[in-house]
Amino acid sequence: MPNQIELKDVKITGGYFHEKQQMNEKVTIPATYKQFYSTGRIDAFKLKWRNGQANQPHIFWDSDVAKWIEGAAYTLIHKRDENLESLIDSVVADLVAGQTPEGYFNSYYQTIEFSNRFTNRNNHELYCAGHLIEGAVAYKQATGKDSFLNAMCRYADYIEKVFTDPGRDKNFRTPGHEEIELALVKLCHETGNKKYLDLSRFFIATRGTLDGEKQTNANWASSSYAQDHLPIADQTTAEGHAVRCLYMFSGAADIAREFNNEKLKKACETVFNNIVSKRMYVTGGIGGNYSGEAFSYDYDLPNELAYTETCASIAMIFFCQRMYLLTGDKKYMDAIELQLYNAVLSGISLYGDRFFYCNPLEVHPERRDYFTKIHNSQFAPEYERPEYFGCSCCPPNVIRLIASLGQYMYHVDNDNDGEKIYVNLYNSSEFEYNGVKIIQETDYPRNGEVKFTVTTNKPVELILRSPAWCHNINIDTPDDSEEEEEYYDEKTEFNSMDTGNYSFKIKEAGEYKLSLNFAMPVVELYANPKVHYCAGRIAVKRGPVVYCAESIDNGENLKSVAINKIPDYKCEQSQIGGNNIVKIKCDAEFVSDNPENSDDLYSEKPFKSEKKRLALIPYAAWANRGRSEMLVWFLKNRE
Amino acid sequence: MPNQIELKDVKITGGYFHEKQQMNEKVTIPATYKQFYSTGRIDAFKLKWRNGQANQPHIFWDSDVAKWIEGAAYTLIHKRDENLESLIDSVVADLVAGQTPEGYFNSYYQTIEFSNRFTNRNNHELYCAGHLIEGAVAYKQATGKDSFLNAMCRYADYIEKVFTDPGRDKNFRTPGHEEIELALVKLCHETGNKKYLDLSRFFIATRGTLDGEKQTNANWASSSYAQDHLPIADQTTAEGHAVRCLYMFSGAADIAREFNNEKLKKACETVFNNIVSKRMYVTGGIGGNYSGEAFSYDYDLPNELAYTETCASIAMIFFCQRMYLLTGDKKYMDAIELQLYNAVLSGISLYGDRFFYCNPLEVHPERRDYFTKIHNSQFAPEYERPEYFGCSCCPPNVIRLIASLGQYMYHVDNDNDGEKIYVNLYNSSEFEYNGVKIIQETDYPRNGEVKFTVTTNKPVELILRSPAWCHNINIDTPDDSEEEEEYYDEKTEFNSMDTGNYSFKIKEAGEYKLSLNFAMPVVELYANPKVHYCAGRIAVKRGPVVYCAESIDNGENLKSVAINKIPDYKCEQSQIGGNNIVKIKCDAEFVSDNPENSDDLYSEKPFKSEKKRLALIPYAAWANRGRSEMLVWFLKNRE
Repeated sequence: MPNQIELKDVKITGGYFHEKQQMNEKVTIPATYKQFYSTGRIDAFKLKWRNGQANQPHIFWDSDVAKWIEGAAYTLIHKRDENLESLIDSVVADLVAGQTPEGYFNSYYQTIEFSNRFTNRNNHELYCAGHLIEGAVAYKQATGKDSFLNAMCRYADYIEKVFTDPGRDKNFRTPGHEEIELALVKLCHETGNKKYLDLSRFFIATRGTLDGEKQTNANWASSSYAQDHLPIADQTTAEGHAVRCLYMFSGAADIAREFNNEKLKKACETVFNNIVSKRMYVTGGIGGNYSGEAFSYDYDLPNELAYTETCASIAMIFFCQRMYLLTGDKKYMDAIELQLYNAVLSGISLYGDRFFYCNPLEVHPERRDYFTKIHNSQFAPEYERPEYFGCSCCPPNVIRLIASLGQYMYHVDNDNDGEKIYVNLYNSSEFEYNGVKIIQETDYPRNGEVKFTVTTNKPVELILRSPAWCHNINIDTPDDSEEEEEYYDEKTEFNSMDTGNYSFKIKEAGEYKLSLNFAMPVVELYANPKVHYCAGRIAVKRGPVVYCAESIDNGENLKSVAINKIPDYKCEQSQIGGNNIVKIKCDAEFVSDNPENSDDLYSEKPFKSEKKRLALIPYAAWANRGRSEMLVWFLKNRE
Repeated sequence: MPNQIELKDVKITGGYFHEKQQMNEKVTIPATYKQFYSTGRIDAFKLKWRNGQANQPHIFWDSDVAKWIEGAAYTLIHKRDENLESLIDSVVADLVAGQTPEGYFNSYYQTIEFSNRFTNRNNHELYCAGHLIEGAVAYKQATGKDSFLNAMCRYADYIEKVFTDPGRDKNFRTPGHEEIELALVKLCHETGNKKYLDLSRFFIATRGTLDGEKQTNANWASSSYAQDHLPIADQTTAEGHAVRCLYMFSGAADIAREFNNEKLKKACETVFNNIVSKRMYVTGGIGGNYSGEAFSYDYDLPNELAYTETCASIAMIFFCQRMYLLTGDKKYMDAIELQLYNAVLSGISLYGDRFFYCNPLEVHPERRDYFTKIHNSQFAPEYERPEYFGCSCCPPNVIRLIASLGQYMYHVDNDNDGEKIYVNLYNSSEFEYNGVKIIQETDYPRNGEVKFTVTTNKPVELILRSPAWCHNINIDTPDDSEEEEEYYDEKTEFNSMDTGNYSFKIKEAGEYKLSLNFAMPVVELYANPKVHYCAGRIAVKRGPVVYCAESIDNGENLKSVAINKIPDYKCEQSQIGGNNIVKIKCDAEFVSDNPENSDDLYSEKPFKSEKKRLALIPYAAWANRGRSEMLVWFLKNRE
């Protein structure tokens, strides 16, 4: 079974992830700190806010700052930074100073309604605690400084005492917003203290078993909103608030693995299958329902009113990595790849300073403008990323994900058959582990060619993920000379595996080169006819990247543009604001202005059309060039 | 110019309208009375409700009962009915007894907050007054009884005194919900008292001129919600709550005609054009925006979330008839025809006892069930007409429209060129006017053949509307013998007119027969590409009737059904619950269950499909056979 690596062992050296990490360090992390500072989130940790002052602390503020610390900490692993650390140290000092003797800390409750702490399940206390724990673990790993971690251990100890008390009120035994479950597993791993693992298991096992909890949520939404409708092990579908659901199943997958709980594992697998086979957008987006930021019923995937929160896709990545660790099945890494290049990175601008909460697949700016002006903007998605939003969960979540991309790339395993290194995401990087060094060079996903140089002091097997979208792979040794070939044939072995991966077995110490080329033709995807929003339409994808069109390239009325039966797809290198992208062009039929009937609302004659080239850009790169219509699902001509 | 006839002069003798009127008299009128009685609406007129009792009167209840009286009164014109009259007389007696010495009557204000009368513009008082006036005029015309009319004159006198007082609060000088404007014109016509016409003109001229009013509505919606954004004569687009908008423009068209006001006439024409060329569904439905029950911006016509209230289409008919009287342009009668056979009659079940408030063009029952159960039902339309709804404006509005259909069929004119009779709607009927008797026999719109027998004691010209949808008409004298032909050639003249009508001139007294056959091929309509909800799709229409498909005939996933390039449309006589309908069948491609990829959510291969016959029924006949998907706009194959 694959195991997680330490982030310090992998360094991203170039290519797509490197660009994102540079942007993260230079723009997103400082810009987000600035926003958090100016809105009072940083100073809230001083617990000095008093009634009547500006910037009243909010129940979820601690989590925002905690996620920012976690993301910033990941960047410190490879490059310590005094200034950045002093900002974090100052927040940590405030927290330690403000913590109650029992270990409690929450900037909202301690300034607004301390006597009500741990009484309202829906007020995000344990969610904030979970994020603080994750931040503390990351900061300890990055800097060795342990005051934050120690403070969080004290807090976790207190939570354990309060929540496992058998006499505790049944209306609030598990968190309204899950997150602490997975954080406690991390805390156990970092400290070695199994108590935290047991507390996580307690939350996972207790959830959905208490009538009181079901009642609590039923007041303003259904009990499934917070996944309280059934014990977790009995759940078979992804329900309710998508971020909560997947944070919870992340914790559940951890617990299933730690305690070898087959029933819980089965529930996790079943829910994953429900998502990818019935409740996920082609971009990976999940939780499309505006009402409750939630999963809807099977196949209900509206493109314009797709809530598909950035955080939900990030949560799906957390869940999938844990399922990969639990099962070793590469399909979970395929799912991570889809999320990452599409639904997650759509959440941040190419410049790193603007963010989408929702990631729809169809946007009409005039609709947004109209509903913002006249009525309720909820009926139409935004067409430009705002710099900031009041509920600011997504920006620091993107920060911590980008900063920790390395640990999704490689996994390791020492089993009876010897050492294995799993290569799951492709990006230029250096990975060192136990006497094996892997240098990976690629411009993936813009290009399917990936070159490996492996230097090892012993036999080792590389398990290379063959992406689910790839039907054709070219394998090359670096040199075509016969001598080289023989050398490789003797000392290495390259095989396709039943699991859908490739195996590159190195039998002796030495330096080896390997070049893979994943063929990346442009493909068209059809949606199941039950997804009625996509009927008669196709999505365009190349490698793991889903494409979209913007009116800024193609003119208005994208929904009436029909891609030709034989579309003659051509890829070309292009840029948006200095970012390299692969643009796709194809033949399509555009309904044009027609003097004869362009004024008609309805006409017995088809509206006149003309053949033109349609320009497509990666979905994640949309909304970086001003007001524009956007579309993912295109009409497909069959004539 | 055409003038309105008296309802007593036309009798509907058979065919489609007769079926609807029979249903109206036998089912809808008694069922609605029963509902109104059991909910307290009838007894509310006694003004005896007291705090703590059931059925607290609501601000719009008087209007419900008034519309019911008006509709019931229209049926009495041809057939007096002691029982029905005694029900009405009893309500009228309560009203007269309860009226204040000044003439005020409102069952809500007089029982709940009398001291606040005429202070809250949004509380429907003048709207209720308007409907009571319409009811009183109709009841007088039907029965000659005048106590209701006299009471309403007293009320109108009081309203005139209160609202034209120059010192009156500027926040409430015109009604929040229009309706009284058109009612006062009727009151003037019935009583001959010009004061009422002047009061109507006052409301029309004052609207949108006061800052106070704009402010009032801006509190919870925009000022355009209640058409206060501009003086009426300056409005160029249909804005806000659709029923209010069109009741208002009905009054404005009346005033434009009565006072020969060219500027107001121009505004009415401009707004009509805005509606039919940019803001109207193919069914005629208007006011598609759920937010505010309102018109949306140009070309924003979502099919599933189409609010399209039944009352809005009825209001459009009121407006169009007045525009026809104002301009003589037949296009307004074309618009009436479209509304009537589609968006209006969709509002009532084929059995007459269930009603839709909203008339969407696409319905998915599983979506409604999900949102009703889990969240907010506002996100999905109903798939079955409820028996009754709390805001019960639509049922009595349908009642009064069906009962008064005769007066839309014929109009008359005595100008310098002699007598003209306009025949605008086709249905079996007898019309007598000034020595001319017209017998019309037809099964229109199920069949395009219309036979006329005209008996006249003088020369007369029949102006026959050629429906906008009709490209081919066959004209026949009843007998093919040469003798007959000559006779007709001498004494009559049949011509196509520039106006789009046909002229049948009768030069001498006598009996004449004429048979028209409007060719009714099935046609496909394309929507303007700016209506992105209909991109790549067609609607099917035959004559004035728009068609839809239901899953009960065709299976699920209607949105993925594509009508063939050459569809081989065939019409067949059919029935739903004893009602004759013309069913259409055509060749279409259905995406079928495909063992190979039916479980995929997205697939590189198209999902397998098969050719089958698609069954279509008239849109107005949908939702009469239980839970079913419904669709109006179909994918169109072009291969």
